[in-house]
Amino acid sequence: MAVLVGLDIGGTKIMVASADREGNILRRVRAETSTSLEADLANIDRMIAAVAADEEILGMGAAIGGPLDWEQGIVSPLHQPAWRNVPLKALMEAKWNCRFRVDVDTNVAAIGEYRWGGLFAERFLYLTLSTGMGGGFLIDGKIYRGQDGAHPEVGHQSIHFRCSNPSAVQCECGVSDCLEALVSGNGIRRIYGKSAETLNPEEWQEVAYNLGQGLRNLAALYAPHVIRIGGGVAVGGGERFVSAAREAMQEHLRLVPAPQLGLSHLGYDTALRGAIALALLK
Amino acid sequence: MAVLVGLDIGGTKIMVASADREGNILRRVRAETSTSLEADLANIDRMIAAVAADEEILGMGAAIGGPLDWEQGIVSPLHQPAWRNVPLKALMEAKWNCRFRVDVDTNVAAIGEYRWGGLFAERFLYLTLSTGMGGGFLIDGKIYRGQDGAHPEVGHQSIHFRCSNPSAVQCECGVSDCLEALVSGNGIRRIYGKSAETLNPEEWQEVAYNLGQGLRNLAALYAPHVIRIGGGVAVGGGERFVSAAREAMQEHLRLVPAPQLGLSHLGYDTALRGAIALALLK
Amino acid sequence: MAVLVGLDIGGTKIMVASADREGNILRRVRAETSTSLEADLANIDRMIAAVAADEEILGMGAAIGGPLDWEQGIVSPLHQPAWRNVPLKALMEAKWNCRFRVDVDTNVAAIGEYRWGGLFAERFLYLTLSTGMGGGFLIDGKIYRGQDGAHPEVGHQSIHFRCSNPSAVQCECGVSDCLEALVSGNGIRRIYGKSAETLNPEEWQEVAYNLGQGLRNLAALYAPHVIRIGGGVAVGGGERFVSAAREAMQEHLRLVPAPQLGLSHLGYDTALRGAIALALLK
Amino acid sequence: MAVLVGLDIGGTKIMVASADREGNILRRVRAETSTSLEADLANIDRMIAAVAADEEILGMGAAIGGPLDWEQGIVSPLHQPAWRNVPLKALMEAKWNCRFRVDVDTNVAAIGEYRWGGLFAERFLYLTLSTGMGGGFLIDGKIYRGQDGAHPEVGHQSIHFRCSNPSAVQCECGVSDCLEALVSGNGIRRIYGKSAETLNPEEWQEVAYNLGQGLRNLAALYAPHVIRIGGGVAVGGGERFVSAAREAMQEHLRLVPAPQLGLSHLGYDTALRGAIALALLK
Repeated sequence: MAVLVGLDIGGTKIMVASADREGNILRRVRAETSTSLEADLANIDRMIAAVAADEEILGMGAAIGGPLDWEQGIVSPLHQPAWRNVPLKALMEAKWNCRFRVDVDTNVAAIGEYRWGGLFAERFLYLTLSTGMGGGFLIDGKIYRGQDGAHPEVGHQSIHFRCSNPSAVQCECGVSDCLEALVSGNGIRRIYGKSAETLNPEEWQEVAYNLGQGLRNLAALYAPHVIRIGGGVAVGGGERFVSAAREAMQEHLRLVPAPQLGLSHLGYDTALRGAIALALLK
Repeated sequence: MAVLVGLDIGGTKIMVASADREGNILRRVRAETSTSLEADLANIDRMIAAVAADEEILGMGAAIGGPLDWEQGIVSPLHQPAWRNVPLKALMEAKWNCRFRVDVDTNVAAIGEYRWGGLFAERFLYLTLSTGMGGGFLIDGKIYRGQDGAHPEVGHQSIHFRCSNPSAVQCECGVSDCLEALVSGNGIRRIYGKSAETLNPEEWQEVAYNLGQGLRNLAALYAPHVIRIGGGVAVGGGERFVSAAREAMQEHLRLVPAPQLGLSHLGYDTALRGAIALALLK
Repeated sequence: MAVLVGLDIGGTKIMVASADREGNILRRVRAETSTSLEADLANIDRMIAAVAADEEILGMGAAIGGPLDWEQGIVSPLHQPAWRNVPLKALMEAKWNCRFRVDVDTNVAAIGEYRWGGLFAERFLYLTLSTGMGGGFLIDGKIYRGQDGAHPEVGHQSIHFRCSNPSAVQCECGVSDCLEALVSGNGIRRIYGKSAETLNPEEWQEVAYNLGQGLRNLAALYAPHVIRIGGGVAVGGGERFVSAAREAMQEHLRLVPAPQLGLSHLGYDTALRGAIALALLK
Repeated sequence: MAVLVGLDIGGTKIMVASADREGNILRRVRAETSTSLEADLANIDRMIAAVAADEEILGMGAAIGGPLDWEQGIVSPLHQPAWRNVPLKALMEAKWNCRFRVDVDTNVAAIGEYRWGGLFAERFLYLTLSTGMGGGFLIDGKIYRGQDGAHPEVGHQSIHFRCSNPSAVQCECGVSDCLEALVSGNGIRRIYGKSAETLNPEEWQEVAYNLGQGLRNLAALYAPHVIRIGGGVAVGGGERFVSAAREAMQEHLRLVPAPQLGLSHLGYDTALRGAIALALLK
């Protein structure tokens, strides 16, 4: 049986899976990301061979950190310093002789959730809350892109926040007051001096309030039907965290209908499943 | 010559104009808004008759305050309490025997600026800064609508603001920390105890900073090519105000390209000109 | 477990199914269409109750013959004369207390094939070849609608056809030379005096040639990535018929890339599965 | 005053104009197309300098015959054999230091008619009937593109035609029965042995009938609000020709609403005016 191949290439690990045309995963493998581009690429080729298992590959898709040129398929993931201007699409299409598509991990995750996550929403926003914060916005199932293909940066909006340690709010992008600096794993570590898992209830509440303010802005500007949140911080915080964020969102939202808000249905596989969808895309 | 008729129905005044198919205004009239629906409607009919001047009317378009149902053409403009659930489209089409289209004033203004304002931008945001604050976002020239047709409410986002009188920040929507409460005419009056025209340079600077933070959020979430700002506060503040807001926006924007930002090219006629465009819409 | 409910309401039979959020069918029932609206509606209610099996219904979707008003949900299926201006959406939402969406069967089938048929194509055309001929065209997964919501009528195009009995080419719409009159079940019966199943190879070849000419027009005007064909005549004709049509299409297509062409992957359930997708739509 | 520059590069002549931001032409020049690429490019540079008249150039747009890669701006116009894989965008941007956009002439003409032709239609089709036949289809003002960016080829559809000299129906694309072979200037010359201007009323009627059949297919598949026709054959045939084509279209159209049909409002400047609009595009 011919297979689709999806890749989720992250700063700490790489996941590769094969699937049938209905998106059911057939085989999957996983490896640590190295510090060498050559090692990573060789590893990826081995992983693809392993999951393809000598079947014909119908297409491949990949999720990776930005920035990247999704049309040319040239990638420079911020958190993988060895990867700079890598012509991933050209390399993969030459090697594997099938169409290869790549996009920013949050866009790919949004597609995964939309297609395989048990939803069908005309205006859909997917958020990731892990080391950093990002999102992918789909209009009628299509990735929204802005000026010259730029993707929105939902983590780099400003909100009226609450913070018990305001001087520690400092975003990695260089600006002091981004939402990402308040609610991402790295931001939490800077502000509270510990990882998200170890936050106490009051601290979780503060993080949820700030996320809720960001959600309120997203609701006001996109007026989406559904927002789903994935990524380690969100999955770790769980339903309780999402509930608190929802409450803060709704408390600040009057004129725009509140979106349905929930955790990703695909857990840690959202980007991988999205990459499989990309592999099918014509 | 057959004509288009456009109406800008506001809380304090009503403007009606006729135009040729290229949007050139032929005749225009203006009246105060009354406190009676019947008087307003009779007035509007007289104004239409005056600008049509016995020519065939090809179509009519109107801009009015929300909320409204743009498909059914039923309007309930917030600041015109006598107008509640008025089936404006049905009334006008029965009376004038031509197609009548109506939309929220900020959406209509966005269309006016897009079509007649000397620009052609794939992602375009129009903002109004007057008594309140609103906006219309066009994707490839088409009005963006969210969940079930809801339009974004760009004035009701939260930002990390600066304010010399923070306890006076209170939005009319019921939430304390909306952008509108910081930068609109009414918001300015609450905070600074005077109208926008009489602000001193430091106060203008504070308003511009806060607008800049809102623009930064809009840039981060929509990644538009162009933002144009109209409305009395913006036109009153002029290029200097816009420059200060641009500076604050750019200072806080790293990962998304900055939009081109400027004042509306159509001054106080943006919504009226947009209504004329709507009159042409098939 | 909460369920989705999908309905495929046809001129000869009604199919109703419940499914989970991933579109997997849980229970299904089927009945003959009667000649009484009341009997049909009562039947439909019983069928829904049967497949829902006391679970909460998340939403309902339906496929039915045109014409209809998809926004208001008022239907008048041509081949069900007892159904005229039936406010199906209002009736169902009042009775079942959940969102109900309905669209023309060919549009719904297109959505079914797109979402559950193992494909993901930016430009996708679904065709039905049964008693009549119709289609649904999806741009980035969204139903294409024309002037004031009109859906394309791909069966009512004209082609340069071959026919051994040209005087029998007569479309039910009143025009003599529609494609539907050449390739649909009813058209085949008029031209060849027998049903599609009993055509001899030369007759199949003629039908395939004419379908191929229609496909060539569809390819020239839509330039789609993928065309899938369903419906009794196509499924009956099978891969051999589709191959012959593909050949005729390609022979006449020069400047536009040929689409991938194949039979529906969902067989006779395409519209039913699409109705389940509609049931999920927000 | 800063200016926009538009170019209409055709097989027999090149037109270049400068305009203000509202699209009003300021200066224009025109030259014969040569048989040398170098001569043409030098000529174009001189023409641009002439119309720019030392003003700042805000942007440039160009219409040219296909095929071309509109994103990369590499052109190979069929009827200009000296132009093969010319990186026009790169050449022009390097030379003139401003954004340059190019597209197929029929797409550009569609944009010109849409923006400056006194119309505003959600589904709009522009047709050119000159030496050959082509079209550009706009959905909400945006150029429709098919598989991998391919543009529709409306002249290469098949219709059920009438022809007094059927053996002379032969399209330049290599297929015998394209609409272009029946209604374009070259097709007319092959069939009737003379140019369009010299056709007698019966011959015009036959051409109009065939065009009407093509229009019926376009109406059935796109269901547009408005179709406008330009190009020498259509402008030469005038209102009478368009009326006869409209009649044939309506006679064969039942289930889809007929579009408003008329001649281009911009005469021979449609592509040039569209190029000016492209020059403004961000």
